[in-house]
Amino acid sequence: MKFFQVKTVEETFSLIDEMINPLTETETKPLYEALHYILAENIKVKENVPAFRRSSVDGYAVKAKDTFGSSESMPGFLTVAGEVKMGEQPERALADGEAIYVPTGGMLPETSDAVIMIEHCEDLSGLLNLYRQVAPGENVISIGEDLKEGEQLLTAGMKLRSQELGALASQGITEVTVYRKPVIGYLSTGDEIVPIETKELAIGQVRDMNGITIGSLVSEWGCEFIYGGIIEDSREELERQAKEMLEKVDCLILSGGSSVGTKDYSVEVIDSLGAPGVFVHGVSIKPGKPTILASANDKPIIGLPGHPASAIVIFHLFGKAILHKLQGWIREEKNLARAIVTKNLPSTPGRSDYIRARLFFEDNQWYAEPIIGKSSLISTLVKSEGLIEIPSRSEGVLKGDLVSVRLFG
Amino acid sequence: MKFFQVKTVEETFSLIDEMINPLTETETKPLYEALHYILAENIKVKENVPAFRRSSVDGYAVKAKDTFGSSESMPGFLTVAGEVKMGEQPERALADGEAIYVPTGGMLPETSDAVIMIEHCEDLSGLLNLYRQVAPGENVISIGEDLKEGEQLLTAGMKLRSQELGALASQGITEVTVYRKPVIGYLSTGDEIVPIETKELAIGQVRDMNGITIGSLVSEWGCEFIYGGIIEDSREELERQAKEMLEKVDCLILSGGSSVGTKDYSVEVIDSLGAPGVFVHGVSIKPGKPTILASANDKPIIGLPGHPASAIVIFHLFGKAILHKLQGWIREEKNLARAIVTKNLPSTPGRSDYIRARLFFEDNQWYAEPIIGKSSLISTLVKSEGLIEIPSRSEGVLKGDLVSVRLFG
Repeated sequence: MKFFQVKTVEETFSLIDEMINPLTETETKPLYEALHYILAENIKVKENVPAFRRSSVDGYAVKAKDTFGSSESMPGFLTVAGEVKMGEQPERALADGEAIYVPTGGMLPETSDAVIMIEHCEDLSGLLNLYRQVAPGENVISIGEDLKEGEQLLTAGMKLRSQELGALASQGITEVTVYRKPVIGYLSTGDEIVPIETKELAIGQVRDMNGITIGSLVSEWGCEFIYGGIIEDSREELERQAKEMLEKVDCLILSGGSSVGTKDYSVEVIDSLGAPGVFVHGVSIKPGKPTILASANDKPIIGLPGHPASAIVIFHLFGKAILHKLQGWIREEKNLARAIVTKNLPSTPGRSDYIRARLFFEDNQWYAEPIIGKSSLISTLVKSEGLIEIPSRSEGVLKGDLVSVRLFG
Repeated sequence: MKFFQVKTVEETFSLIDEMINPLTETETKPLYEALHYILAENIKVKENVPAFRRSSVDGYAVKAKDTFGSSESMPGFLTVAGEVKMGEQPERALADGEAIYVPTGGMLPETSDAVIMIEHCEDLSGLLNLYRQVAPGENVISIGEDLKEGEQLLTAGMKLRSQELGALASQGITEVTVYRKPVIGYLSTGDEIVPIETKELAIGQVRDMNGITIGSLVSEWGCEFIYGGIIEDSREELERQAKEMLEKVDCLILSGGSSVGTKDYSVEVIDSLGAPGVFVHGVSIKPGKPTILASANDKPIIGLPGHPASAIVIFHLFGKAILHKLQGWIREEKNLARAIVTKNLPSTPGRSDYIRARLFFEDNQWYAEPIIGKSSLISTLVKSEGLIEIPSRSEGVLKGDLVSVRLFG
């Protein structure tokens, strides 16, 4: 049996970064099914976008120099020499003193170098009155201005959002190589835990809420979830079922059984599943101190506290970080709001506190109202939209202080 | 033909709120499939959670008065009178001067009123040394403290997140009534638009990026998407296909064709699809001015600008609001960050500007770095994580000002 010192939150995040490796298997996905997958290849721009000089407005293609000096009080004049149709090539180049109508997205005639918006001119029977001047390049999108051939378009490790899929579509790329979704297995431990379908609870029993809360977060964060059910509280059963599940999945979550109770063999079982074994046993955090993190033959194992609310908090912090790492997602945490706290929140230096909070916007500023309640209360989470973070170096925050809030999805 | 004044962004949001009604059809979903659906019923707590007095720590159940005065220097003493097993009833009540071991989540013996953590006491062969005192109720979760029978648990119009599903599971509720997912149809217009599968573009052609970007956002925001393809630029075809699609869906999106170009009959076609017809034609916004919003027989129709990046911006604002309203989701917008802008951004009063921005966290503060580029550039969106909002009453913002940023998902 190894001995562990309780880790700080910062140390725990560093260890996750060090110990967890991304999955390497990839798969090919059609663009229409690739949303939120993590890209596994670098993609260069293979075609300029736009492929031709386009107008960014409805207006007239001109030679900019022909418009110089035009104004409301002293309009310039040009001859309207035709029209460019959408999706078609202009019939001819522009001569000096001419203007050709071009719709938004239409192709510019050769020798034109700017577009004057229809709002700024008037076609009087073929004579275009110009009420302002335009500079060369004005209202023109030049070849490759959006995406330039040969440049990096997307890099491996990016999450594919709507705009990335759009950029790929612009290139005629209809399939991408992505990392396959990690499969996450879940087992619940504890003699008091019964299936959620249980109609009548016997005295002392509770339903397996963590199965559904943790399962939902796993799906929300882009992984597959396998619910392995509830294991009776025996070391042999836990060992047998954890081993069996671990063979089928990329990461195993054990709920409950991580407190320092008399029946607490879960850390030993977790440590026995493979090398290097447990690397975090206890985190200096409230709630969620009895958290266990391990790695067995490169598969992460997460021992969550049994309290439903503590389990959600811990999973939002460390579970999310582990799942993202496993997915191959290279990201910075952007889901961190800054808000003014509405109550004093004392804390113990050396321990990180995560306090559930409701957010509201008033006078152009976000406020975080702490929802106070015991760590086991799911009702406090239903009222909350995020977690106020009080770092371990802090003695707490005062009403009116600006705090960081980790937002729920 | 009706005539329209350009609306402000604020007016447009008010009109959406006024003109769009939620779908009324509901369906029953098992809890495991209900994530992110909108609840269509009010649900009351039917069973107290917890149903029995539980310990929130590993420790000893005591009578608080028996611990009074105990300290590190003057420990108190109690007799250890057994152990409560998880999921089981205590064998007997607690007598004066006794302590009974109880694990986290375990049921408290009758007559006990507090729990002392194992860290704060020591069992010396049946004699428990107490190194501190506990107050009545300390480390105890009382009956119904989390969820109290008869109280409101969840209300119709809430989005079901992991914690709401957990709260339902705690009650043994395994099915919920939710609003069915709205079905959103999409048609692209424009002679220059070709399918994204097109290998070689002819001069003047562009691929239908909006089909995939808008489709992705529709799925991301919890609706079904039907891609109806590209319509050749003729009034008759648009009218025929728009009518046909509208019969199959709850909301229709038309991409392109909303500029004031010569071929612009799309507003007339949209207006002809049903009463009350077009209610927004043109918004004082950059980018995305030629936005059209309509309602035909209670089905919303959204005319998006053809520029891919403008279409995404407009869809993030008005499309999202319409889809949420349609879903029956009663919510405040929480996806609004506050950040310090890193550049001056001039704007025209009377017009709202949405500037794409990258976010970064430095010195405990969020910064928004504007990504400057023409409204048509998808590349600027790939680099962005949100949109800086410059309201219509503002003349712009200065470097160092605090601004609101609408975050992408």
